[in-house]
Amino acid sequence: MLIVKKFGGSSVADAERIRRVAGIIADAYSEGHDLIVVLSAQGDTTDDLIEKAAELNASPSRREMDVLLSTGEQASVALMSMALEKIGLPVVSLTGRQAGIHTNSDYGAARIERVDAERIRSELDRRRIVLVAGFQGINRFDDITTLGRGGSDTTAVALAAALHADICQIYTDVEGVYTADPRKIEGARKLEEITYDEMLELASLGAQVLHNRSVQMAKRYGVELEVCSSFVRKPGTIVKEVTKMEKIKISGVAKDTNTARIAVMGLRDEPGIAFRVFRVLSNSKIIVDIILQSIGRGGTKDISFTVARSDADAAVKVLAAQQSSLGFSELDVSETVAKVSIVGAGMMSASGVATTMFEALYDAKVNINMISTSEIKISVLVDEADADRAVAAIHRKFFDD
Amino acid sequence: MLIVKKFGGSSVADAERIRRVAGIIADAYSEGHDLIVVLSAQGDTTDDLIEKAAELNASPSRREMDVLLSTGEQASVALMSMALEKIGLPVVSLTGRQAGIHTNSDYGAARIERVDAERIRSELDRRRIVLVAGFQGINRFDDITTLGRGGSDTTAVALAAALHADICQIYTDVEGVYTADPRKIEGARKLEEITYDEMLELASLGAQVLHNRSVQMAKRYGVELEVCSSFVRKPGTIVKEVTKMEKIKISGVAKDTNTARIAVMGLRDEPGIAFRVFRVLSNSKIIVDIILQSIGRGGTKDISFTVARSDADAAVKVLAAQQSSLGFSELDVSETVAKVSIVGAGMMSASGVATTMFEALYDAKVNINMISTSEIKISVLVDEADADRAVAAIHRKFFDD
Repeated sequence: MLIVKKFGGSSVADAERIRRVAGIIADAYSEGHDLIVVLSAQGDTTDDLIEKAAELNASPSRREMDVLLSTGEQASVALMSMALEKIGLPVVSLTGRQAGIHTNSDYGAARIERVDAERIRSELDRRRIVLVAGFQGINRFDDITTLGRGGSDTTAVALAAALHADICQIYTDVEGVYTADPRKIEGARKLEEITYDEMLELASLGAQVLHNRSVQMAKRYGVELEVCSSFVRKPGTIVKEVTKMEKIKISGVAKDTNTARIAVMGLRDEPGIAFRVFRVLSNSKIIVDIILQSIGRGGTKDISFTVARSDADAAVKVLAAQQSSLGFSELDVSETVAKVSIVGAGMMSASGVATTMFEALYDAKVNINMISTSEIKISVLVDEADADRAVAAIHRKFFDD
Repeated sequence: MLIVKKFGGSSVADAERIRRVAGIIADAYSEGHDLIVVLSAQGDTTDDLIEKAAELNASPSRREMDVLLSTGEQASVALMSMALEKIGLPVVSLTGRQAGIHTNSDYGAARIERVDAERIRSELDRRRIVLVAGFQGINRFDDITTLGRGGSDTTAVALAAALHADICQIYTDVEGVYTADPRKIEGARKLEEITYDEMLELASLGAQVLHNRSVQMAKRYGVELEVCSSFVRKPGTIVKEVTKMEKIKISGVAKDTNTARIAVMGLRDEPGIAFRVFRVLSNSKIIVDIILQSIGRGGTKDISFTVARSDADAAVKVLAAQQSSLGFSELDVSETVAKVSIVGAGMMSASGVATTMFEALYDAKVNINMISTSEIKISVLVDEADADRAVAAIHRKFFDD
């Protein structure tokens, strides 16, 4: 099999951890697999470099920031190579450029445009383990770029797609994808399998296991992912297009406290008013999540929506500036809310999932502020203080009963 | 003018020093010069990386070591770029590869084979200050190489040669080249000018200002060098082919304590014996410096020579192993010796330089063990305990009288 493995910064933070990961790689190699291993920068390296830069320039150019940051992953692959050489394995380290990762020129948040896998193929032909510096590539000006958040995951998936790998294994400090946060919810279970779409919904809900960007790319190119642990050697969670039929109806419960609710009250009840409200927000690049519109009464209506908490002030500011043209009476903001969601591909075909969820919330005396549903997700907005209780109640209802 | 400037690791060790160097660069740019600036890794970065590697593998492959170490200079140029951007200057940082430094594949000690200066030229045409990561290049396999000791100086000289720079300025923590070590010899003077050959002799004598390799390259391509200070803004010492006629007869006095004397005694006084002794040493890659052979007496003779102190044990071992075939009676080793030398292109044409030197040593009651002369140098071997006194006496004789 051709396997792509990706290890994050905490998995290679020091010599001991590097040796542990080298052991995982050695075992896979001795089983006869072809291996491409993508690494992030060690532990706090990236933060340290950012700090060094900040001492010199509060807003350095993104091009130079990428030149600086890309050294972190380069050092990681060299060090891992040495650890593998030490145990007698044939290995070669490659920078993003050498691995053929070609990107656009959006420094700091570049997108991969193509992978020229010639070099990797020839190294694999020589039976070498190929280590690739994650998070980085090169643009058409021959300059170094970095891929931004989740960049190393993206590198791994892109290489798996380009080389038609059998599986892309993302190693993390958790054992897989869980039905809820296992540090908080007793009885949270590791999933054997999950679909791309479910994974996308969970990631957007703050289950920081995989970045959406890499899952989207995996879905587009049909790359089978496995989320597994760098510390415990057992099967993780497989992410793929279709999972087994006997899967449980919902995959997980998650909470997201990075949310704020804004209510625009006393709007005229006339066509186009919602359009005008949200155009103001999108012109300011503010992304809106749940939207709820009240039924008009006495010629006016209210529109409520949620945004990321960091965008709440900006949203209020741009709306307030348009108060007379939009014609509303009042703005109300609450930053003490949380979104609690259940995700599952089998949800819509199974009747009563929403009812069961609402019943759990009722049993737990949690008040629901807003409700939003999609094909594979039901989200409710609750007071932040109720959020953990809500997650626990829902999880108990679905997974313990 | 097109100027290449090179700053070493201690000149860019922290944010404050980087800002100081940025100021030097900014001044030169504002005078209208085209600038290429070569940087080393910050302060202890290289040592820290070597230590990290040693934790994982006592003898890592040199290829991977180069991947690791080259990150240090890459970080330096990015940080310096940010400091220059901060003060509003147009700047671009380049890795060794991007700067077109092509080397052979001798990882860890690669030699520059050619410079493809296209990218640098186009950046200079845009009036940008071009920062180049020193010490590194790329080989024909598209892999990163490093140039070994003095590598950043070599990068600077190679770029100056390829781009026909008007001058290559090497910034150090001293103000230039002195007639003797200014920290030890009172009255040591900074030289205005010195020839390549004199500089080569001084460097080989342990005046660690410029590496021989970069001086040799400068001589070959006629690159005018200036050794100057990162800390004090005044003219340094110019190194070029021919210096002014009115120059003083000798350029400097230096001592080298990294030396050991070995005497092979009681050799048969017959043709070919010296050849056989030194073939044994050269077969073992031991480099011999001064050689002295006694006049034969009673059918036997003695041969004495000096080697680097680190080679003394090996030299004794290989000679002892051949005792019967070489036919000597005894080996004597002294590691408490030092070489004291005077260097000067005007030396041989001026009579009495050697006499003056020996007189100074006689006045200082320093015994001379061996004497060696070349076109521009006279070296004597003395007891290590006498070395500083010898240097001071010689310097006083030539420079104070």
